[in-house]
Amino acid sequence: MSELTVGQFELVYNAFSFTIATMGAATLFFWFGRSQVADAYKTAMTITGLVTAIALYHYVRIFDSWDAAFSVVDGQIKATGVAFNDAYRYVDWLLTVPLLLIELILVMRLSSAETWSKGVRLGALAAIMVVLGYPGEIATDPGTRWLWWALAMVPFAWIVYELFVGLSKSLAAQPDNVRGLVNTARWLTVLSWSFYPVVFVFPMIGLTGGTAATAVQVGYTVADVVSKAVFGVVIFMIALRKSQSEMDVRGDAKAATA
Amino acid sequence: MSELTVGQFELVYNAFSFTIATMGAATLFFWFGRSQVADAYKTAMTITGLVTAIALYHYVRIFDSWDAAFSVVDGQIKATGVAFNDAYRYVDWLLTVPLLLIELILVMRLSSAETWSKGVRLGALAAIMVVLGYPGEIATDPGTRWLWWALAMVPFAWIVYELFVGLSKSLAAQPDNVRGLVNTARWLTVLSWSFYPVVFVFPMIGLTGGTAATAVQVGYTVADVVSKAVFGVVIFMIALRKSQSEMDVRGDAKAATA
Repeated sequence: MSELTVGQFELVYNAFSFTIATMGAATLFFWFGRSQVADAYKTAMTITGLVTAIALYHYVRIFDSWDAAFSVVDGQIKATGVAFNDAYRYVDWLLTVPLLLIELILVMRLSSAETWSKGVRLGALAAIMVVLGYPGEIATDPGTRWLWWALAMVPFAWIVYELFVGLSKSLAAQPDNVRGLVNTARWLTVLSWSFYPVVFVFPMIGLTGGTAATAVQVGYTVADVVSKAVFGVVIFMIALRKSQSEMDVRGDAKAATA
Repeated sequence: MSELTVGQFELVYNAFSFTIATMGAATLFFWFGRSQVADAYKTAMTITGLVTAIALYHYVRIFDSWDAAFSVVDGQIKATGVAFNDAYRYVDWLLTVPLLLIELILVMRLSSAETWSKGVRLGALAAIMVVLGYPGEIATDPGTRWLWWALAMVPFAWIVYELFVGLSKSLAAQPDNVRGLVNTARWLTVLSWSFYPVVFVFPMIGLTGGTAATAVQVGYTVADVVSKAVFGVVIFMIALRKSQSEMDVRGDAKAATA
C-alpha cells in the first residue's frame, strides 16, 4: 500500500470517521426506539443496536489502525511501518452477520420453534461464510483468493435461498401494513450483502496498490453502513408498525368487550 | 493558513470548545426531554438529540485537528505541518442536515405516507446539497468555488420552496398553540442555513489568509449552534405543547364519556 496518495488516504480516513458517527448514532436510535415497540419486538431492537454498537467498536479500532499505518506531514504521505489490521472486519462480521439474520427473523415473529431453527441455521451459515472468506482476504495470490471466495459463496447462496424460499410462507403471513417492509428488509439484506463479494474481487480484476486498497476500504464501509444501519431503520419501522397495529387490535377488542 | 495570528488561533480554539460544551448539553437536554413528550413525538426528540450528538463527535475531532495543526510557543504561532481536516464538517452535514429536516417533518405529525415522501425528498435534497458544496470548499481557485456554490444552491432553493410552499397546507393544519412555533422552526431553518453559503464565499470576496480561515471557522460554528441546538429547542417546545394539548383532548373525551 506504499503507493497510496494523500487524497486516497484522506478519503478512507474520512469514510471511517463518517462510519464511527453513523454507527454510534444508529445504535442510540435503535436503543431509544426499543421503548417504543411492543414487548415482542424488544429483543429485535436490542440486537439491531448491538450490531451497530459492535461495528462502532470495530470502526474505532480500524480508524486508529489506519491512522497509525500512515502519516501525512507537509502534504507528503509516508507508511510508518505499522501494519494496517484487516482482521478487525472479519472479527466484526463473525459477530454481526449472524445477528443481522436473527434481527430479521425476530421481527417477523415466527413461532418459537421456527425462530429457533431458522436462527440457528441462518446464523451458522453466516458465520461459516465469514470464516471461509478470511483466508482469501489475506492471500495475495489471485488463485487462492478465488478459491476461498467460491467456497464462501456456497453458504451465501444457501442464505439467499433460505430468505427467498424458506421465508416466503412466513412473509405471506405478515400483516398487510408491514409485508412490503419485510420484503424490503429481505432484499436489502441480499443486495447489500452482494456488495461484499464484489469488493473482495477488486484486487483480482486489475485494481492495484493504493487504488485497490482505497476501493476495498471504501466499498466495505459503504456496504457495512447499508447492511447494518439502513437495514436497522427498516427493522425498527417494521417493529413499530407491528406494535401499533397489535395495540390497535387489543384496543378494539377491549372496546368490543366493554 | 500560516499567516494566522495567535489571537485568531485562540478565537477559533475557544469557539470550538464552546461548541463542544453546547452540543453536549443540548444532546442531554433533548434526550431528557424525550420522556416528557407523547409517544408520537419520541422519535423526533431522539433524532433532535442525535443531530447534536453527531455534531459533538465532529467538534471534538475538529478541535483536536485544529490543536494538532498549530502550536503556540513563547507567544509565537507555528504550523506543525499536520493539515487541519476540513472534511469533518462535510461528513457531519451529510448526516445531520437531512436529519434536521426529518425532525421538523416528524414533529409536524403528518400522515405516514406524507412523512415518508417528504422525509425522503427533503433528506435526499439536503444530502445532494452537502455533496455539491464539498468540491468547492476544498478548491482554492475562486471560479471553481463559485461553480460548486451555485450548483449547491439549486437543491437549497428547492428545499426552501418545499418548506414554504409544500408544507404550507400542513402548517395550516397544525393546532393553534403551535402554529407560530412551527413557522418559527421553518424560518429558523431557512435563515440559519443561509449563513452557510455566505460563510462559504468569505474567501472569494477579499478575505485572505488567517482572517479568511478564522471567519470561515467561526462562521460555520455559529451557524451550526443555531441550526442544530437552538433549532432543537424550538422542536422540543413544539413537541411538548402538542403533547399537552393532545392529552387535554383525550382527557376531555374521557370526561365527556363519563
